[in-house]
Amino acid sequence: MSEFVSGRHFLNTPGPSNIPDRVLRAMDRNGINHRGPEFGALGRSVIGQLREVFQTEGTVGIFPSSGTGAWEAALVNTLQPGDRVLISRTGQFAHLWEQMAVRFGLDVMALETDWRHGADPAAIEQVLDQDRERRIKAVFVVHSETSTSCMSDIPAVRAAMRDHPALLMVDAISSLACCEYQHDGWGVDVTIAGSQKGLMVPPGLSFTAISDRALTASRNGGGSRRSYWDWEPLVNANKTGFFPYTPAMHLLFALQEAITMMKEEGFANVFARHARYAEATRRAAKAWGLELNCLDPAAYAPGVTAIRVPDGHSADKLRNVILERFNMSLGNGLGRVEDKVFRIGHMGDLGVLSLTGALTGVEMGLRAAGIPHKAGGVQAAMAYLASPT
Amino acid sequence: MSEFVSGRHFLNTPGPSNIPDRVLRAMDRNGINHRGPEFGALGRSVIGQLREVFQTEGTVGIFPSSGTGAWEAALVNTLQPGDRVLISRTGQFAHLWEQMAVRFGLDVMALETDWRHGADPAAIEQVLDQDRERRIKAVFVVHSETSTSCMSDIPAVRAAMRDHPALLMVDAISSLACCEYQHDGWGVDVTIAGSQKGLMVPPGLSFTAISDRALTASRNGGGSRRSYWDWEPLVNANKTGFFPYTPAMHLLFALQEAITMMKEEGFANVFARHARYAEATRRAAKAWGLELNCLDPAAYAPGVTAIRVPDGHSADKLRNVILERFNMSLGNGLGRVEDKVFRIGHMGDLGVLSLTGALTGVEMGLRAAGIPHKAGGVQAAMAYLASPT
Amino acid sequence: MSEFVSGRHFLNTPGPSNIPDRVLRAMDRNGINHRGPEFGALGRSVIGQLREVFQTEGTVGIFPSSGTGAWEAALVNTLQPGDRVLISRTGQFAHLWEQMAVRFGLDVMALETDWRHGADPAAIEQVLDQDRERRIKAVFVVHSETSTSCMSDIPAVRAAMRDHPALLMVDAISSLACCEYQHDGWGVDVTIAGSQKGLMVPPGLSFTAISDRALTASRNGGGSRRSYWDWEPLVNANKTGFFPYTPAMHLLFALQEAITMMKEEGFANVFARHARYAEATRRAAKAWGLELNCLDPAAYAPGVTAIRVPDGHSADKLRNVILERFNMSLGNGLGRVEDKVFRIGHMGDLGVLSLTGALTGVEMGLRAAGIPHKAGGVQAAMAYLASPT
Amino acid sequence: MSEFVSGRHFLNTPGPSNIPDRVLRAMDRNGINHRGPEFGALGRSVIGQLREVFQTEGTVGIFPSSGTGAWEAALVNTLQPGDRVLISRTGQFAHLWEQMAVRFGLDVMALETDWRHGADPAAIEQVLDQDRERRIKAVFVVHSETSTSCMSDIPAVRAAMRDHPALLMVDAISSLACCEYQHDGWGVDVTIAGSQKGLMVPPGLSFTAISDRALTASRNGGGSRRSYWDWEPLVNANKTGFFPYTPAMHLLFALQEAITMMKEEGFANVFARHARYAEATRRAAKAWGLELNCLDPAAYAPGVTAIRVPDGHSADKLRNVILERFNMSLGNGLGRVEDKVFRIGHMGDLGVLSLTGALTGVEMGLRAAGIPHKAGGVQAAMAYLASPT
Repeated sequence: MSEFVSGRHFLNTPGPSNIPDRVLRAMDRNGINHRGPEFGALGRSVIGQLREVFQTEGTVGIFPSSGTGAWEAALVNTLQPGDRVLISRTGQFAHLWEQMAVRFGLDVMALETDWRHGADPAAIEQVLDQDRERRIKAVFVVHSETSTSCMSDIPAVRAAMRDHPALLMVDAISSLACCEYQHDGWGVDVTIAGSQKGLMVPPGLSFTAISDRALTASRNGGGSRRSYWDWEPLVNANKTGFFPYTPAMHLLFALQEAITMMKEEGFANVFARHARYAEATRRAAKAWGLELNCLDPAAYAPGVTAIRVPDGHSADKLRNVILERFNMSLGNGLGRVEDKVFRIGHMGDLGVLSLTGALTGVEMGLRAAGIPHKAGGVQAAMAYLASPT
Repeated sequence: MSEFVSGRHFLNTPGPSNIPDRVLRAMDRNGINHRGPEFGALGRSVIGQLREVFQTEGTVGIFPSSGTGAWEAALVNTLQPGDRVLISRTGQFAHLWEQMAVRFGLDVMALETDWRHGADPAAIEQVLDQDRERRIKAVFVVHSETSTSCMSDIPAVRAAMRDHPALLMVDAISSLACCEYQHDGWGVDVTIAGSQKGLMVPPGLSFTAISDRALTASRNGGGSRRSYWDWEPLVNANKTGFFPYTPAMHLLFALQEAITMMKEEGFANVFARHARYAEATRRAAKAWGLELNCLDPAAYAPGVTAIRVPDGHSADKLRNVILERFNMSLGNGLGRVEDKVFRIGHMGDLGVLSLTGALTGVEMGLRAAGIPHKAGGVQAAMAYLASPT
Repeated sequence: MSEFVSGRHFLNTPGPSNIPDRVLRAMDRNGINHRGPEFGALGRSVIGQLREVFQTEGTVGIFPSSGTGAWEAALVNTLQPGDRVLISRTGQFAHLWEQMAVRFGLDVMALETDWRHGADPAAIEQVLDQDRERRIKAVFVVHSETSTSCMSDIPAVRAAMRDHPALLMVDAISSLACCEYQHDGWGVDVTIAGSQKGLMVPPGLSFTAISDRALTASRNGGGSRRSYWDWEPLVNANKTGFFPYTPAMHLLFALQEAITMMKEEGFANVFARHARYAEATRRAAKAWGLELNCLDPAAYAPGVTAIRVPDGHSADKLRNVILERFNMSLGNGLGRVEDKVFRIGHMGDLGVLSLTGALTGVEMGLRAAGIPHKAGGVQAAMAYLASPT
Repeated sequence: MSEFVSGRHFLNTPGPSNIPDRVLRAMDRNGINHRGPEFGALGRSVIGQLREVFQTEGTVGIFPSSGTGAWEAALVNTLQPGDRVLISRTGQFAHLWEQMAVRFGLDVMALETDWRHGADPAAIEQVLDQDRERRIKAVFVVHSETSTSCMSDIPAVRAAMRDHPALLMVDAISSLACCEYQHDGWGVDVTIAGSQKGLMVPPGLSFTAISDRALTASRNGGGSRRSYWDWEPLVNANKTGFFPYTPAMHLLFALQEAITMMKEEGFANVFARHARYAEATRRAAKAWGLELNCLDPAAYAPGVTAIRVPDGHSADKLRNVILERFNMSLGNGLGRVEDKVFRIGHMGDLGVLSLTGALTGVEMGLRAAGIPHKAGGVQAAMAYLASPT
């Protein structure tokens, strides 16, 4: 229990992100008949809104599931056991996606990374170039690796694929609605996202944007045995705004309101805000003398910043001190970087003073936990944020 | 748009059911860190509560999915393509479950019904008795067929299975928390349920109670290729209250509050209330001179009553008149009984005057839609409900 | 505790009325700076909306108080101890207003009624006609006597005043927003209303529409010693949307949303709905063989119906049975009609099935409480409501 | 409109204070019958809770009004026109209370202050000592002058009154529930408070604790003409939990939850938290090189800190920059200190990171508005707050 139990908990994990009151209020209502006209209008509205978010004219599907569900849907709709896929091991979520592919019997080729950069388009290009028989059916890339706060450059990956017919599948779970993302414009075949990150909605929904090429691959006996994840009935039902089962309608109420809010703010402004908060956070980290996990400035993530603690110190102990003393949750290090990094989430609904307040929590926590650092991180962030945009 | 737009919509579909304000308020809050101690406590609490609801000492799992997801989990964790299963075609949901089984390559044996009775234990017994080679790996039964409002007698089915080693899998989606259900006591191997029926929670969660026998079947290479639906990591994570992915925590907040409410009322009282409302509804139907879809008084469902309109009349037209004139949603006829029945949901959070109010809506709708009937249904229900229990 | 604790309580008192979810959600937010620009915009908006509700181009004031506060404001702003006022004793609220006048030292002339009719314009005319010295400074009339469900005819009273200079002060607490009301068009000087009746807002705000004549009377030393209730600073501050003290802003958030909803429905539709529900309620009462308290069909109130129980029976016992068995609150008899009448509120946010549901509660209650009556009240109401408007 | 429209507004006015979600949720419900048993239980509960807050065994009354209403009630229940009262002009709220006294015809003696100290007990003692005829009927003191952030020492004032029979009336509007307050223990006769400050409830309720001596003074013809503010019927009705009019029940729902929360935290902890936040705020101000308005360290207020801007600079311009750039509301200077001070509210529900976040907003605002200051205020506050209590 925090020393200061009063007031709001600071939720600065990289998902679930903070949910605006308007979104919570949109959920605070009785359900409706999921086969009635009111529901149909809701369904059509959110499908249309999601198209804008994904920047696609094509097919968008909504699953009542975590984001991992949409990963699975991407696999089972387009790939069969034995199919070869290429994945960049950019972090914990790429690792989990790879594990899933293995469980479905796919033949996984993996490109290593140091978990401190995004995927390497040149390495992808090389592998695909050598794949003369076109055995590789799909390339998997995580756009923003939430575990490392490194981005991969999707247009560069697409360019690297040149005329290789593999499908390009992108996990945009922690990037969508935090920065520019163009499903159509970048030539992505399957984009996967979830509700609880940039979209500011409680967890429980996953989203998929599907190119015509991917949709074709899923038809006529393509893909693996599937039912729940099958795109076909979902896509058919979604055309009229309905679902093949009872949908998680309260999360749809929330989603509709959340996207409405983002459109009111303007997506360009939303993205600029994320960029500004991420930069302020990095300036704080640098002023503290701490190392950013991401080594490539071009790959800094807009919604989360992973910061390394000095060798011999425990990031988890720091996080616990901050939780207990200052009532703030930060993201923990996952997999290879467990206890070595802590992650500050700054995605979704976040005011500038909530960001700086969070940074005061980190700075006080570093002091309270005895982590070697220099004071002045908050000062650096304030100096940046107080100047006009 | 209803003539009377003021006031609350009457939601009398057989799911989603009405959500109590307390449950809605429990969801009306920011998210929390799904890897932090507050979440662990929540997770352990709801797992424990669900055990009470299922009346099991064993394993309970929660999926962020519709109820169909838990069907799929039951299949892919225990059965392989080519495995033979036996299902009673008791209605639309048995039909959909059967279709799913076919998609996963199972060898389905089906027992026909007229959609106006529950599963026939004697027929099941006969088939299993003839299955000398024990090729049937599982028996599927829908406890309360939401589409027909007929119950199947689970203890009788279990008894009919005698020493046959097939797993007994029961869909209790629209019965759980509406009437007595004993996962352990009745010897069920897999019970499947959803959040949006008797449990009074928005749709988006499915639940599974799993016997040790079923769990064993799922291990050591049992079952089909799976990842999202895999019981193993779910069950392992749930032991400490956590989940292998970002859980739909707002629905868990809701679930915790809903089960707390039911425990305050007392499950016996909850079940008695459902029985009493169902009886009142049937008395209304009889007084109107309309036919109940369920022909077996021992099989009347506690949470929904399907009523047939006279031949030559349209149940859907009636429902539309009721929606437009009286601002009430009723369940439609599904599959074989499309347009022939309408269904009055009376499950979950429902006051006696909300029930009688709903019945006035049906009686006024019958009049307004020109469906031949006798007045007096509401009168009959009131006579029953006004007498002490 | 009700036998049926599940579901929503039926609140059928004649105030507080049911509050729409949209209005509750509008209140479900943090406060704001009551001296900042956001508040000013809110204040100007609700003042403007209230002008539409009162149908006035003139001055409207909002007090954080119960409706009795606005009564007091009317007195102390325009009258001095010793001033003579005329009041029609039409029921309990006229009685309380008279008592207040006495406490402020006014010289009260009262016209008796039988509490089963509204104010008598002819009797008022006669008194004023005899007041050759124009000593009577104000005429008090209660538009809808909530205790008797009898209306007084305000235009007729105004006509009866002819050229007498007394101010016409009208309590429209339980009529405003339930039926036509024209502050300017009817020549009313001070109209008093509250938030918790037709306006569908929680109790805690009172409203006053003030004619220029009344405002003039309050200035230049007019009225009694006052501070909180003083119109002058309130009216001045309200011009820019602000208040002379910290306003009850959450109730203003609610009010803004409630009037927005009524405008969406259309005031004419709101009034027609109230008339229709009141007629249905009276038809039920007549079919039960019970006597309406109001003896003048032209004076039936739109928002509440007071029904008499047969001699020798207790209305309060009936109400208790209904509360305990059927979870519904009805209004009790007040003052002279204590225990002789019960009152069904049908004002504000109310759906047709909530009305008929309430009537089923009364009919079952009459039966359960052993009050002599005929069955068929609900039937009569349904017959009326099922026919097209 | 703020540059950063995302996220929560920082409400750091000295009332209305931030409202906890639990309190908002407690209000988010339909009304109830204010004459029924559920309401009685609520009324008795909150009256009892308020006694704990005021630390009194005696009479507590609740008015649906702003705090100024309770001022007025104190006057009209105990004093008559012509009665002499003594008031210390400690700030804007003392000034307004004095003006009210004048409007009610009281003979006001005033003791000047510089608005930078609390009331002077020695000066009060001297005046009372000279009042040989005991013409002074009451002494008015504001415990925490919200406009100056200076406290008056109530026990010292009480001691200074020695055996003078005047009633001691204390405005504790912005101190109650922020620091120790003992209505009985300190010998106060009338204490006045409001809902929207330390009690964390929306504005719209005022509270009064009344000594037996004050109650006696109000009876038997004591006081002035009054009705709404009359203690007698209020106190009588409150004994059973009811009210003489429709109470503002939603604010009572909120109040019950808010006091429950404070009891869970422990009043001693609540007070210590306020003291700690106030000290952190003052350290920030000093590090910025800005002058505190309050010159007496013994008189620093726990819930608000007024800070002076350097001569030639505008506090209101600073506040506007902070509102527009950083989405935070601060309190403005009132009366004599208009535009010279800005006030940081730190009362009620406030987490430590919300406080430091607010201070970052002030520091960035000082920079953005070009107010001469030194950086380092946030740093100083963090250094203080990061050390263990």
